[in-house]
Amino acid sequence: MSIFDYFRSNKQDSAAVAKERLQIIVAHERKQRNQPDYLPKLQRELLEVIRKYVEIEQDQIDVQLEQNDDCSVLELNIVLPEAR
Amino acid sequence: MSIFDYFRSNKQDSAAVAKERLQIIVAHERKQRNQPDYLPKLQRELLEVIRKYVEIEQDQIDVQLEQNDDCSVLELNIVLPEAR
Repeated sequence: MSIFDYFRSNKQDSAAVAKERLQIIVAHERKQRNQPDYLPKLQRELLEVIRKYVEIEQDQIDVQLEQNDDCSVLELNIVLPEAR
Repeated sequence: MSIFDYFRSNKQDSAAVAKERLQIIVAHERKQRNQPDYLPKLQRELLEVIRKYVEIEQDQIDVQLEQNDDCSVLELNIVLPEAR
């Protein structure tokens, strides 16, 4: 399955509302388990970058961070305001 | 399928080399087709943010940008240098 298919399959949920959406996923596969995980910090900086392009309010952002021994996945889901 | 499963299923490819990997995916679902697509610009800025945390050379980065009428997907795959 390609990444494109993955997002396509996710689209059905949002079809009803027909909103603009931005989804950012950062996955970090670590070889050494004792390394620091910078994904929580990265999250804030990524949002700052995105804000240069689109106006987003804090309540439009859904953040999930999953961590296990050798992989961390940061997922940001942003519902964008209507284009003006 | 959760996002975590997606990255897990991708892991088999890299298991042999056992490198550190960082994967960033940005998907932009557009409602209006004539809107500007900022993903190509975003790509450079995202890399600048990542470089604050890890040293990456240009040749360690694989960039793919897929675009169709209502969705753009930017995928960055970075093989990280061994931790020192």
